[in-house]
Amino acid sequence: MAELRRDPISGRWVVIATERGARPRDFHVPGRGKRSSGFCPFCEGNEDRTPPEIAAIRRPGSAPNTPGWRVRVVENKYPALQMTDPAPAPADPFYESLPGRGTHEVIIESPRHLISPTEMSPADFRLVVQTYWERERKLTEQEGLSYVLIFKNVGEAAGASVEHTHSQVIGLPVMPKRVEEELRSSRSFEKGGGRCLFCDVVDHELAEGSRVVLECDHFVAFCPFAARFPFEMCIAPKAHGSRFCELPRERIPHLAVLVQELIARLEVCLEKPPYNYLIHTGPVSDPDRACFHWHIELIPRVTRLAGFEWGTGCYINPMAPERAAQYLRDVPDLQVADIMTSAPVL
Amino acid sequence: MAELRRDPISGRWVVIATERGARPRDFHVPGRGKRSSGFCPFCEGNEDRTPPEIAAIRRPGSAPNTPGWRVRVVENKYPALQMTDPAPAPADPFYESLPGRGTHEVIIESPRHLISPTEMSPADFRLVVQTYWERERKLTEQEGLSYVLIFKNVGEAAGASVEHTHSQVIGLPVMPKRVEEELRSSRSFEKGGGRCLFCDVVDHELAEGSRVVLECDHFVAFCPFAARFPFEMCIAPKAHGSRFCELPRERIPHLAVLVQELIARLEVCLEKPPYNYLIHTGPVSDPDRACFHWHIELIPRVTRLAGFEWGTGCYINPMAPERAAQYLRDVPDLQVADIMTSAPVL
Repeated sequence: MAELRRDPISGRWVVIATERGARPRDFHVPGRGKRSSGFCPFCEGNEDRTPPEIAAIRRPGSAPNTPGWRVRVVENKYPALQMTDPAPAPADPFYESLPGRGTHEVIIESPRHLISPTEMSPADFRLVVQTYWERERKLTEQEGLSYVLIFKNVGEAAGASVEHTHSQVIGLPVMPKRVEEELRSSRSFEKGGGRCLFCDVVDHELAEGSRVVLECDHFVAFCPFAARFPFEMCIAPKAHGSRFCELPRERIPHLAVLVQELIARLEVCLEKPPYNYLIHTGPVSDPDRACFHWHIELIPRVTRLAGFEWGTGCYINPMAPERAAQYLRDVPDLQVADIMTSAPVL
Repeated sequence: MAELRRDPISGRWVVIATERGARPRDFHVPGRGKRSSGFCPFCEGNEDRTPPEIAAIRRPGSAPNTPGWRVRVVENKYPALQMTDPAPAPADPFYESLPGRGTHEVIIESPRHLISPTEMSPADFRLVVQTYWERERKLTEQEGLSYVLIFKNVGEAAGASVEHTHSQVIGLPVMPKRVEEELRSSRSFEKGGGRCLFCDVVDHELAEGSRVVLECDHFVAFCPFAARFPFEMCIAPKAHGSRFCELPRERIPHLAVLVQELIARLEVCLEKPPYNYLIHTGPVSDPDRACFHWHIELIPRVTRLAGFEWGTGCYINPMAPERAAQYLRDVPDLQVADIMTSAPVL
């Protein structure tokens, strides 16, 4: 009894194929958990082994590029894009191309050699989310960027080359395809009925309930109706907002505690899987950007892309999102108890 | 000196980031090569361990589901889609969904336990490509399908769960997103200038030459201008044709020998990498399907998708396609010599 579901935002079809009656342990993949003992350039004391500090949250009086920090932002050692990049020779005038001007930063999330946000105190992870917010804010003001993406890769299978907990920020001079697609469907929906499509999805998920994992006053986390992957989650603000960096600052702790709790539950269900998360924020300068409803996508990397996915842009998901949400809800609270319904102290 | 390139067909941006001066050996990933010794349901003699035969090329007089075949087509043991699938209970009327009606076949390419098409004789691989052509033809005529995708996964990292050389065919009741995108750009271009966009790309690549890997009378293989992955290749017919199964039958051997040679060269450059290939054929019934120019995408799986790719739909490719094409051209001919320029005997 497979079912084809269409994601309303991106338009892609997903085959929910639950014939095999998969359970979470069927998706366990080896990889994370053991801490390597080699040299780590991200650990406190090794500040001279990274590119210079762009920003940091540090002890008053401590100097940049020395110990004494809690979160540290540096340029990626191998940046995909750089603002100073000279224009390359024209590649081929038949096609469209641009110099690779942009930014590529690394956010080092802890001075200690931790490998998961769930090993951090809620207060420390809050500083990480606050740093996301500040970097997006800063880069949004920078001339020449069209989009700012903040993302995290955990585990080798999810593309992480460094184990020490970190995130990345890429500033792009072009509007990425995925964002353009989401903006297009939000825009056409808004023109039709006067509301953002994502707002309707959020309201519907809250009312329907079967795919909701957790909610608090300001945010909801759910497994999307047309989830591509087992245990995929979406975290969205309940109130419309087009850019993450426009979120009122006092809501950052609420978001941080929710994200940390969701990762903790995912780590229980799938035994510390490799995963990615990314903040889908609105574009920097598109005239219709107000339609965009920012959100976070949390993607466990426990199935593999194959020829079918490359050829169609469709996905085969062996776990119905309603069942995944149930598994995630059934994990006992790990980090948070009443914090979900009351505002934490900043 | 990174460069942003836009793929004219899909519209996606790719960062060609060659800062690290990568060479082919930087992309070697472990995995393939050693033959497992366990039981294989695809080997000759084990016909009763697969679902029943849908089609086969076999010795005259041999019975279905017994030895004596050279290529064998069966239903996938765990089909993602089935024509007999009953309609599931309405999932959620807020969203769009459909019963998972479709087809999911496996093409077993050899009675022997081979793990790569390069281990087959050219005559045997020709039968495989002929089977692709016949299955697409058959399924295109089947009521209720909108698209037929033929694809191959080689190696665990590319999503293969069985080692024995095989391909898959999925018949979908909906038009997949990727095909819709390619059709849309071909259509708008055709309306503008009177020609298929892909025909212009093929002509341009042949004239420009730096990205061409191999060509014969009827086909050209090149590394696309905005290749997403190191050593990604596209194989296209020189003459416009919207569906693979409409290719004149006598050209099948030319295509087979070219594909086999390209895989052989890829296996030299990247030491038997995991890979996918897929036949992007035109849709079954779209009124504008004649605009579509069928082609094969050959995708080595030597880099990993991470948060950036999920969030943007852009890719970071550390190997310029011009260099990859050069490496592939420089491999001495492995399978073919003059066959590229003269028609092989059927």
